[in-house]
Amino acid sequence: MTAFADLHRPGAPLLLPNAWDHASAAALFDAGFPAVGTTSLGVAAAHGLPDATGAARAETIALTKLIAKLPGMVTVDIESGFSADPAEVADLAAQLSDAGAVGVNLEDAMIDPQVLCGLIEAIKRRVPGLFVNARTDTYWLGDSSLEETLVRTEAYVDSGADGVFVPGMAKPEEIATVVEQVNAPLNLLFLPGKHTVTELAGLGVSRISTGSLLFRAAVHATVATALAVRDEHPVPPGIPGYDETVNMLGL
Amino acid sequence: MTAFADLHRPGAPLLLPNAWDHASAAALFDAGFPAVGTTSLGVAAAHGLPDATGAARAETIALTKLIAKLPGMVTVDIESGFSADPAEVADLAAQLSDAGAVGVNLEDAMIDPQVLCGLIEAIKRRVPGLFVNARTDTYWLGDSSLEETLVRTEAYVDSGADGVFVPGMAKPEEIATVVEQVNAPLNLLFLPGKHTVTELAGLGVSRISTGSLLFRAAVHATVATALAVRDEHPVPPGIPGYDETVNMLGL
Repeated sequence: MTAFADLHRPGAPLLLPNAWDHASAAALFDAGFPAVGTTSLGVAAAHGLPDATGAARAETIALTKLIAKLPGMVTVDIESGFSADPAEVADLAAQLSDAGAVGVNLEDAMIDPQVLCGLIEAIKRRVPGLFVNARTDTYWLGDSSLEETLVRTEAYVDSGADGVFVPGMAKPEEIATVVEQVNAPLNLLFLPGKHTVTELAGLGVSRISTGSLLFRAAVHATVATALAVRDEHPVPPGIPGYDETVNMLGL
Repeated sequence: MTAFADLHRPGAPLLLPNAWDHASAAALFDAGFPAVGTTSLGVAAAHGLPDATGAARAETIALTKLIAKLPGMVTVDIESGFSADPAEVADLAAQLSDAGAVGVNLEDAMIDPQVLCGLIEAIKRRVPGLFVNARTDTYWLGDSSLEETLVRTEAYVDSGADGVFVPGMAKPEEIATVVEQVNAPLNLLFLPGKHTVTELAGLGVSRISTGSLLFRAAVHATVATALAVRDEHPVPPGIPGYDETVNMLGL
């Protein structure tokens, strides 16, 4: 078991914050998080590209090369693989692994689950040590069917997925069912106000991602601070100074 | 006078927020700001590079090409020109202007002011319509000499600078003196808690930049939100949802 896989423990989940550039990743490692994921929305939006369309392949590779050098583990959101060709997706996975990434996140976007199974098998054949987190969009894009979620996640695990990710799932009894029936660590998306880390831990969740939450918080803070200056309100508290920021980011 | 130059009015200053990637620029335009500058700290740090060292030339050009397409005016922080060679700096300015930028910010880093004069002259010969904001670091890096500030800013204006920038200057009587004696719009760095836009307007300031403040606010919000999830505190208020963010950024 790799060091990253070992962080996925039912009941003691890995809290995985998501970064989109070198600064956000460096700041999160500096704050003590042992691993960060990337957020495809953030990576795409930082470059003016739409999310989940496969447009940000080059930017995702470039970012991985940068942040995998930081002192922490990096797992990369590769959307649906940026290609439907298993060989191409395996090549990408190998490239990210060579750059230092410890895992990837691969989403099904509610297409035929056999397509994702093929991609997972190709990646695991090529880079067996890379943690493949297989995401089903049954709740995120679909009709929130627990049955369909079980069918898909079990198929992904049979194809070699190291973990499964069901963003949008929030009902405790459904979470507990997936934990019980699917033979792989369960990753959930943190939904503010809906649950706590402790509650998700109690249900047997192994990994909790923040998805695009931190990126959206950063965009909000950017605009809110500019408007505070304009409207002569106090700027939001806690903003580090120039030197403090440089130190935090290791620059 | 260009539309951008026309926004520099003593007593009715342009509030210029500073962006570092496509998302921050798009969000600021969406919030109604007519123009954004770039922040060299933010641009460099987003790519893991140190600020003010000339390391982020390629990243600065790439960012300009991206954000100059947005519906608003863009002026670019080019540090000390990323070169001491006037021809090279003029080439860069032309490239940024061709990409759609309306201005550049050029800093003296407290070296011989004649060097900056040479760069300003080269840029204005090559791209006369580009607004050159000449920054002196007398307060930012130097010993806060008003006399030296006047000597340098007057030299830069004589060389063709369209505006002067004195980050770190905050004393009202010093600000008023520069406004009175230097024949170009004065740009100041907004210093939270030290003054308001109205106060700086009253002193005759023509432009107020936020520098790296918004970038630092974004880094802070990123970490603060991740720690709030970890520590089971409410996440900071006001974070837009996924769809709202996509709309805000025009993606």
